[in-house]
Amino acid sequence: MIGPEDIRAAARVLDGVAHRTPVITSRTLGDGVVLKPENLQRGGAFKFRGAYNKISSLPRGARVVAFSSGNHAQAVALASSLLGAQATILMPEDAPESKVAATRGYGAEVITYDRYTGDREAIAARLAEELSAEIVPPYDDPLIAAGQGTAALELLEDAGAVDTLVVPVGGGGLIAGCATIAKELGVRRVVGVEPEAGDDWQQSLAAGEIVSIDVPRTIADGLQTHAPGVVTWEVGSRLVDEIVTVTDEQIVDAMRFAFERLKLVIEPSGAVGLAAVREGIVPREGRIGIVISGGNVGAARFAELIA
Amino acid sequence: MIGPEDIRAAARVLDGVAHRTPVITSRTLGDGVVLKPENLQRGGAFKFRGAYNKISSLPRGARVVAFSSGNHAQAVALASSLLGAQATILMPEDAPESKVAATRGYGAEVITYDRYTGDREAIAARLAEELSAEIVPPYDDPLIAAGQGTAALELLEDAGAVDTLVVPVGGGGLIAGCATIAKELGVRRVVGVEPEAGDDWQQSLAAGEIVSIDVPRTIADGLQTHAPGVVTWEVGSRLVDEIVTVTDEQIVDAMRFAFERLKLVIEPSGAVGLAAVREGIVPREGRIGIVISGGNVGAARFAELIA
Repeated sequence: MIGPEDIRAAARVLDGVAHRTPVITSRTLGDGVVLKPENLQRGGAFKFRGAYNKISSLPRGARVVAFSSGNHAQAVALASSLLGAQATILMPEDAPESKVAATRGYGAEVITYDRYTGDREAIAARLAEELSAEIVPPYDDPLIAAGQGTAALELLEDAGAVDTLVVPVGGGGLIAGCATIAKELGVRRVVGVEPEAGDDWQQSLAAGEIVSIDVPRTIADGLQTHAPGVVTWEVGSRLVDEIVTVTDEQIVDAMRFAFERLKLVIEPSGAVGLAAVREGIVPREGRIGIVISGGNVGAARFAELIA
Repeated sequence: MIGPEDIRAAARVLDGVAHRTPVITSRTLGDGVVLKPENLQRGGAFKFRGAYNKISSLPRGARVVAFSSGNHAQAVALASSLLGAQATILMPEDAPESKVAATRGYGAEVITYDRYTGDREAIAARLAEELSAEIVPPYDDPLIAAGQGTAALELLEDAGAVDTLVVPVGGGGLIAGCATIAKELGVRRVVGVEPEAGDDWQQSLAAGEIVSIDVPRTIADGLQTHAPGVVTWEVGSRLVDEIVTVTDEQIVDAMRFAFERLKLVIEPSGAVGLAAVREGIVPREGRIGIVISGGNVGAARFAELIA
């Protein structure tokens, strides 16, 4: 459903709008490892790429609706404000005040719901109908996935060839886009990383079909999905070579390492790829590229996690 | 004592060796502000630039001696290992174990002394004589200052013209190098930032001559100098337009902002420029470039500071 040309088209849309995040190396990690720190992306995560690519396909002044408690909310709000779209974001009423404030700060209207009793997809659908708005899904959409893939395109353009590309996996938008362009550009292995508690993609790959799990308990709040998406599974099941998992403790170790050695703030979800490589769960063979997906973690929460 | 051509020569020496750190902008800070994050430099601080530039001027296999409890130690150790020099670093015996380990990790020999009874300059001089080694001073040296100036050269090449350049000031190596190239490239104002408790440069500029103060108590441990250097004063007194100061509290606020909004780990000394701009101590006129000098702060210490 998406091909390399879609990633290249998204790259043209994002040119001069998204940050071209740098490629980072570290002597401590080893010469063979290159990082793409999307925590330095606008909005603090790769999510801006997909949201902007999607919303730019809509007429100017369009209304959009999104549901998210995290990075997607801020990405849709920011992309909308840049593109003159009117965004309404549905957030759980117990979402961190900082995230609600950041989303409002980008000019979006925030509507809250009770995450324990409300069905966010149903509420969003009703809202979209009432407002004649388009829903911007967090991952299960060709334009979203294509936008996310530009992170891998830039990594490969700026760092040169890699043998293995390591990508965090939640719903699969990032890995679907990244795998599409990576395989086209000669990357041998695309490895997805999930939190151990939320191995829906690993189980799905093993079963050869979409497997749904209970919403996992993990500190990687951006990866708390219960099943691959339809679009992302279509791509991922063909192009992803392996899914590995990491524990919350390994994630925290990687966050501490990133803080102290790389001087980068990485949120738990963003650190899973780094954790998998540091722990040897992804073997050190050939040249390895790692996508660091985001950095939206508060200083107080970080202090609590690394304590 | 140093001119723009020295900075350009240092840039050629460092090409392909030092990281060309990116230029970073933030919507929250405003369009007119560009950051040069030298916390992403090798060794975690701009210090690598000067140390490498200096040591590369020595014969291969040379012995070098440096005294430092902080970023300069790691920079000299790393540059020495890359250049085949043999480094001996004099560190206070109560230096953080992590810094001692990092310095040894780069292959340097570490000798400790009692910071309350020992005179580190005398010990270093004796050591240098015994070892027939060259002392690599932390700032008061033309090649060191010229190396540090490459940070401003890169900023201006990559970000385009700025009206004001804001630079942390300890001994003055960074600002001497940066001011030399910045004034050549049309920067109108070069502003140095010191911790309030350690305003030796501010007092010196006001007096028109080097003023020495007691070693200041501040969390900005990299800026605890008691007087400008001779080389750095010669340059700084001519080319620095103003010195401003920030409090430790303003520094911590800037560190928290960098963590949460920029996703960057900045050590206290590295955050003084950002603090001065955020607080309006450096007025928001025209385009402002800020050098973020380093990020060597442990996760536990960071947690303590922002608590």
